[in-house]
Amino acid sequence: MTSTTRINHIGLVVDDIDEALKFWRDGLGLKVAYVEDVPGQGAVVAFLSNGNQEVELVKPTDEHSGISRFLQERGPGMHHICLEVVDLAGYLERLQSMGVELINAEPVLGTGGRLIAFIHPKSTHGVLVELYELTPEEPEIRLALAGELADRALIQGQRVAAGVLGFLRGLRQDQHSEDDTN
Amino acid sequence: MTSTTRINHIGLVVDDIDEALKFWRDGLGLKVAYVEDVPGQGAVVAFLSNGNQEVELVKPTDEHSGISRFLQERGPGMHHICLEVVDLAGYLERLQSMGVELINAEPVLGTGGRLIAFIHPKSTHGVLVELYELTPEEPEIRLALAGELADRALIQGQRVAAGVLGFLRGLRQDQHSEDDTN
Repeated sequence: MTSTTRINHIGLVVDDIDEALKFWRDGLGLKVAYVEDVPGQGAVVAFLSNGNQEVELVKPTDEHSGISRFLQERGPGMHHICLEVVDLAGYLERLQSMGVELINAEPVLGTGGRLIAFIHPKSTHGVLVELYELTPEEPEIRLALAGELADRALIQGQRVAAGVLGFLRGLRQDQHSEDDTN
Repeated sequence: MTSTTRINHIGLVVDDIDEALKFWRDGLGLKVAYVEDVPGQGAVVAFLSNGNQEVELVKPTDEHSGISRFLQERGPGMHHICLEVVDLAGYLERLQSMGVELINAEPVLGTGGRLIAFIHPKSTHGVLVELYELTPEEPEIRLALAGELADRALIQGQRVAAGVLGFLRGLRQDQHSEDDTN
């Protein structure tokens, strides 16, 4: 039987990314690896890496989003866990045949260009589980999405917490340098 | 700065280990790696492995324990995350100097012979964080503790969910075989 192969990341809901970074980055020594504004989910996400896996900080940007309701009802804390699988479509088919309730019956494109699907907490004993299959295209999609966010954040400067702006400026400069050399 | 090096496991509170195994073992394909009765915490724990990391199912056995209150107040779901560090004592010292509130100011012996310390959710934005340092003695302590549980469970047969008894019987037989050959 196919098994999940790795814990990829743990998603945490926070009400203030700057404040959360003081513990998760400065305290634990994790590095900010990737930031994305996800208007479809009404959230900004920041991935912090230990070099192997990631902790995802999720901050609501829309008070009517599901993630915002989660924060209001339960307060900041653990939101979901993401497990890697090799054949996501096949995996979902098998789970469905076992009667597991899926939020995404087929793989969808998630943050960072990931191919993902969520399983309903009803079938997991209260845990929102994200399954994730690495695709060859993901690194390119991830860079493009981060570049777009950097543009929006530097022009608009509102929706992204100040704590991640330094990271975004650095990213933007890297991309400009690449443009210059191309 | 030292960083956490790996997500070691994610702890989930469940009200029924048998039922939880139907999803976490049979659905996701994780293997039951280790079971321990922890009277001091009023809980039985079962670790499921993907070969790299583990998911820990925690079931209260004492209705007055902290884990039981957690289950009553929040229902089944995510309870804590465990991150590996290299120098646990040094790590705790540094966190404390930053004003981080620790549940264990010094490393303690946790389930499976782990050297661990918990950080208070107050300082982590709502997440119970366990830090963990692998010690050379851990594999031996783990085997001894599991053997004790297997004895108690097979004699008493009450406090451990039926779903893990097969695993325990197998473990007990392995130990008897070892005894025979020694």
